[in-house]
Amino acid sequence: MALKYAVIGTGALGGFYGGKLARSGNDVHFLFRSDYDFVKQHGLSIDSPSGDFHLHDIAAYRNVNDMPQCDVILICLKTIHNSMLGRMLPPLMHKDSLVILIQNGLGIEEDLAKALPNVTIAGGLAFICSNKIGPGHIVHLDYGKLNIGSHNAKDPSILQQVCDDFNQAGIPAEVSPNLLLSRWQKLVWNVPFNGMTVVLNTTTDQLMQNEATRQLAYDMMLEVIAGANQCGVALRESFADKMMELTEQMTPYAPSMKLDYDHKRPMEIGYIYSRPLQTALAAGYEMKKVSVLENQLRFIQDRLIF
Amino acid sequence: MALKYAVIGTGALGGFYGGKLARSGNDVHFLFRSDYDFVKQHGLSIDSPSGDFHLHDIAAYRNVNDMPQCDVILICLKTIHNSMLGRMLPPLMHKDSLVILIQNGLGIEEDLAKALPNVTIAGGLAFICSNKIGPGHIVHLDYGKLNIGSHNAKDPSILQQVCDDFNQAGIPAEVSPNLLLSRWQKLVWNVPFNGMTVVLNTTTDQLMQNEATRQLAYDMMLEVIAGANQCGVALRESFADKMMELTEQMTPYAPSMKLDYDHKRPMEIGYIYSRPLQTALAAGYEMKKVSVLENQLRFIQDRLIF
Repeated sequence: MALKYAVIGTGALGGFYGGKLARSGNDVHFLFRSDYDFVKQHGLSIDSPSGDFHLHDIAAYRNVNDMPQCDVILICLKTIHNSMLGRMLPPLMHKDSLVILIQNGLGIEEDLAKALPNVTIAGGLAFICSNKIGPGHIVHLDYGKLNIGSHNAKDPSILQQVCDDFNQAGIPAEVSPNLLLSRWQKLVWNVPFNGMTVVLNTTTDQLMQNEATRQLAYDMMLEVIAGANQCGVALRESFADKMMELTEQMTPYAPSMKLDYDHKRPMEIGYIYSRPLQTALAAGYEMKKVSVLENQLRFIQDRLIF
Repeated sequence: MALKYAVIGTGALGGFYGGKLARSGNDVHFLFRSDYDFVKQHGLSIDSPSGDFHLHDIAAYRNVNDMPQCDVILICLKTIHNSMLGRMLPPLMHKDSLVILIQNGLGIEEDLAKALPNVTIAGGLAFICSNKIGPGHIVHLDYGKLNIGSHNAKDPSILQQVCDDFNQAGIPAEVSPNLLLSRWQKLVWNVPFNGMTVVLNTTTDQLMQNEATRQLAYDMMLEVIAGANQCGVALRESFADKMMELTEQMTPYAPSMKLDYDHKRPMEIGYIYSRPLQTALAAGYEMKKVSVLENQLRFIQDRLIF
């Protein structure tokens, strides 16, 4: 049976993933905020190296109460809005709905499970470069792979069905057998490069070219790996070398936190920095170098005018 | 017998200290670089809350070879120029000359002793807010105290004589019984505030008002104190609390490294960061949070156009 999808947060991520699913024939319902009127009239445009396309008639909503109950709810918001999820999601859900948090950081699923105790939750890791450049206009630059892992699903087969839908839609997707491992793995890259591009107002390639920051990025990766291991998530140090090589090969890139900073939007410090630091510390390991970045980012954030 | 002084580097520091000594009747010989022509013609002006004054006829030199041999040589250069001292100083020295390095950081005396093995060396710690605002024009803002400690003096009585001359000139000065302790103590303040005002492009008061950076400054102070203790220099953690209180009471202040950064001058990363880090590491302690600042500063420095 075909799955009915909701996309909460139709921005760079939700617009691309939801748009691809809809274009491939899935029943997808999109929640918009400021772009609602524009999209209702003009539709949603996606520019992508894999082919530009336009969705003229999309199921767009301004309010969750107008949306149908969906089988799969893709959360593509910034995590700074997650405290709203407990109130937002119930109208969209039936008893078997699956909520997939396609977001960065650690502890996101735990917090949602506290807010909505009986809900089936998964996490999604997006490996993608994508931007929203105007109302209803997404530009997909590169990559796109999606990793989905269960947090508390009793029957994880639905995750495979979601991945099948994504693969069908041209998005490489696979089920992660260990969501926690996947989240820590993604932090290995996100922690050094999100924060350092903001604090030093630069791009990943500049950080990689300079000996001092290259070493610092590597040191922070090793701290995150040590933090993961201390939390019982087995991750080898060689993963840091792999991430360094990968970054070396990337085109110059401003991570999402740098884009938030540049646009004076709140940064996702909580789930990307504070929570991993607290979690590792509770397990007995202090990620000291990472904590410097957290404090510096909090200073910068407090100074930004929102 | 009156001491004959040389001032090497007549800037914010050397101009003020040397100027005060000269005004109080001491025989002081000043080395200038770019300001030589101006000062030769117009003299040296010092604005100070303790009284403005002008020295019209000062013993100004452009070249050390034209200077007389002096009893006390005050090095008031930025440490980034210290590699020149081995060549610069010999023409100024007789066999009993004392060189006082009035500079920030660690390992400065050791490096000079290597370059000039038989020279008597002391270190000076200046607690002063002073700027050079134009050719031959120094503005003294606040403080001024000088701490002088022996590195290898066989007869330390000359240090007391120098302090007496300073006190006579209105500069509170005293002999430090333990130069290494004095140097580490000064690092406790310099390490967090010099680097953080640069990396976060701010002032000490802003760092103190923000909870995250206030905590980070305190954490770094504790790391420096732990580093000192590991190197056999006994320093209590309560010294950090004292420095925090002192910073609380200071008027908003841009440390010297921030001024260097703002004027696109090279920063004194080597003796203020790298050397203390290396020294503590060699003794078995890694100042991890401080090392983040070192790497960030190196990145920033490498990007500045000199």
